Amino acid sequence: MNDSLARILEFTEELEKLKTVTRRNRTLDEDRFENSAEHSWHTGMMALTMKEYLPPETDITRVILMLLIHDIVEIDTGDVYLYDDEKRREIKNNEGMAAERLFGLLPEPQASEYLDLWREFEKRETADARSAAALDTLQPLINHNVTGRENLHGMTVTRVAEKKLIIKEVSPELWELAQHLISSGVKKGLFLNS
Amino acid sequence: MNDSLARILEFTEELEKLKTVTRRNRTLDEDRFENSAEHSWHTGMMALTMKEYLPPETDITRVILMLLIHDIVEIDTGDVYLYDDEKRREIKNNEGMAAERLFGLLPEPQASEYLDLWREFEKRETADARSAAALDTLQPLINHNVTGRENLHGMTVTRVAEKKLIIKEVSPELWELAQHLISSGVKKGLFLNS
Repeated sequence: MNDSLARILEFTEELEKLKTVTRRNRTLDEDRFENSAEHSWHTGMMALTMKEYLPPETDITRVILMLLIHDIVEIDTGDVYLYDDEKRREIKNNEGMAAERLFGLLPEPQASEYLDLWREFEKRETADARSAAALDTLQPLINHNVTGRENLHGMTVTRVAEKKLIIKEVSPELWELAQHLISSGVKKGLFLNS
Repeated sequence: MNDSLARILEFTEELEKLKTVTRRNRTLDEDRFENSAEHSWHTGMMALTMKEYLPPETDITRVILMLLIHDIVEIDTGDVYLYDDEKRREIKNNEGMAAERLFGLLPEPQASEYLDLWREFEKRETADARSAAALDTLQPLINHNVTGRENLHGMTVTRVAEKKLIIKEVSPELWELAQHLISSGVKKGLFLNS
């Protein structure tokens, strides 16, 4: 086996670990939290099916690739809760180092290619990164609507909507969908109506 | 919300179920089997990183899309073990009906587009479908090499290699990788050397 393929194998083996990084969301299994590998697949599927509701300048292939790789850094850092602002600021530097280590397992030019793609996603400046970020933050609302049982964190509608604003900036239709899901969440007791 | 987006939401909610469809492979978690959503993500990542080892006529974006959707039918049929030939023949018709029901949740033209893509994957006739099938069957060898603990099924090297032949047909380099993983599996006691 050539050295380049050996490195790709090592990276692919490392990816197995993302299946053990759990998030705050549940699954339909009785007692299991969603992990970041499943979440990544789900967001990739959303990019595929919701592409017509993203801005016309969006390159949907790039958005799908971003979503497939966006959480790989969590192999080293773990998942940080969306609403934990302090922890999210603290972790930024660690995530950058994790990206360098993990994508650095790959041969060039792939290592640089995916590191750049991940950095682009994190900055949320380009159309593709903003579309990917909107879908990334829309997915938990859908997951919660299907699997959520109780409000574990005293979350209010105001706080949820504030954290999901990028959806509004990216797509009026997906923002309508998000508002529908938030209203549905209030009825189910997932969010407090304040 | 318009009708088209409401249908996409219904489909996306339905996808949550794929996270509960377990396979025979383990994960790095102590007592959990891999599910088909995680597996689909892992194969999509493999398409991304192994593309240069696929035939030049391969359209890698189509391969990634095929891999993201290839197991969705299992929401209705469950996962059938690769080595259970009889059961796999029996399930063919059910899988076709599952694909019609599940992709049929989507609005047109998406419903037909993904149904056709899934059927193409199943037939394994086009270059893209064959590349996707090779990666789909290579992934468990990688997963097993990382997570496998014991040979649960008395599996022999001959039977494994026979079931993985499409990798050989698609890519000499990935076949070399597969053989490396099979040899490693013998050393770890995952497969019997006969």
